Amino acid sequence: MAGAIEFYFEFSSPYGYIASCLADDLGQRLGRDLAWKPFLLGPVFKTTGQAPLVEIPMKGEYSKRDFVRSARFHGVAYRQPSKFPIGTVAALRAFYWVHDRDPAQARALAKALYAAYFTNDIDIGPAETVVGIASSVGVDAAALAAALGDSAVKDRAKSEVDAAIAKGVFGSPFFIVDGEPFWGNDRIPMLEAWVKRGGW
Amino acid sequence: MAGAIEFYFEFSSPYGYIASCLADDLGQRLGRDLAWKPFLLGPVFKTTGQAPLVEIPMKGEYSKRDFVRSARFHGVAYRQPSKFPIGTVAALRAFYWVHDRDPAQARALAKALYAAYFTNDIDIGPAETVVGIASSVGVDAAALAAALGDSAVKDRAKSEVDAAIAKGVFGSPFFIVDGEPFWGNDRIPMLEAWVKRGGW
Repeated sequence: MAGAIEFYFEFSSPYGYIASCLADDLGQRLGRDLAWKPFLLGPVFKTTGQAPLVEIPMKGEYSKRDFVRSARFHGVAYRQPSKFPIGTVAALRAFYWVHDRDPAQARALAKALYAAYFTNDIDIGPAETVVGIASSVGVDAAALAAALGDSAVKDRAKSEVDAAIAKGVFGSPFFIVDGEPFWGNDRIPMLEAWVKRGGW
Repeated sequence: MAGAIEFYFEFSSPYGYIASCLADDLGQRLGRDLAWKPFLLGPVFKTTGQAPLVEIPMKGEYSKRDFVRSARFHGVAYRQPSKFPIGTVAALRAFYWVHDRDPAQARALAKALYAAYFTNDIDIGPAETVVGIASSVGVDAAALAAALGDSAVKDRAKSEVDAAIAKGVFGSPFFIVDGEPFWGNDRIPMLEAWVKRGGW
């Protein structure tokens, strides 16, 4: 089996959420594993000089309309969160802490966090909310709560964000397959063609 | 026949050029006319606070790679211009001046300008270059050259740019069909689905 498709996403990103709902099918169609890699857009925006989509004049209005339209297009449940965007560093740290113990559980946690935020309008910013959701997918709540304050856990998550930026990841979702970068759900057809043809 | 699909593009935009190569087929598939509407990204960037793609850290590197990859994906000839991006106000004014006399000729002019810039590496910024290319598609060169200095012709072109911005057009290509906006070539499949289903 060929190498995994790197799947980068930010927990506050509607398009990242939609991608997370499409990711398993994509991997199955291509016969490739996906390596789920959450990161933070905040540090990316510092590097690129960009801002959250909804804060950009014109583009922001388009985006708000497009979040809902894109979710429907892809058959994904979606509810625009009342607090948006949010900081997701607790979710990020929790993901990698769980991932180092049980990758499958980390993926389940990512899906549960996304579902809470983008279908149930739960603010997944606070650490205690993240711990509660983690507990619902079988994570040891007390151990996770303690870990979230641990500087090694913070460093672990930060190193993933740094690595994503070093690889050129500037948006969510972002896929890298066989070294080739693809930004956005609307590039999934091109990604699939790339894999099938071995590039062009 | 239903109303035309508005097709907005900037003459310095690689993705606009690729769209111009796909536009006739798109119209044919959907049984809809396309109204070609060049505009300028410069005034848009002033409104949105954005910058040319290639000047944005990270995104710029991705874009340069993606221009070529996207052209190949769509089967479109492409050569990255050595001077890029460029100001295209002369091309814009020429287009609308020709358009008001002969819309089909204006479309031929747009295609010739794009081909010159994106396949033959000809800088289409200078007015005399635009006039020369216009002449090659049958436009009266002397009349066009005189018109390009006319303030009414300048105002006519500016009013189109203002109208595009008023409609929320912030990128190239940009399509509006039945009031619904679609940004980018990678949204053409969604646009087609929208037209076929009558929205969702």
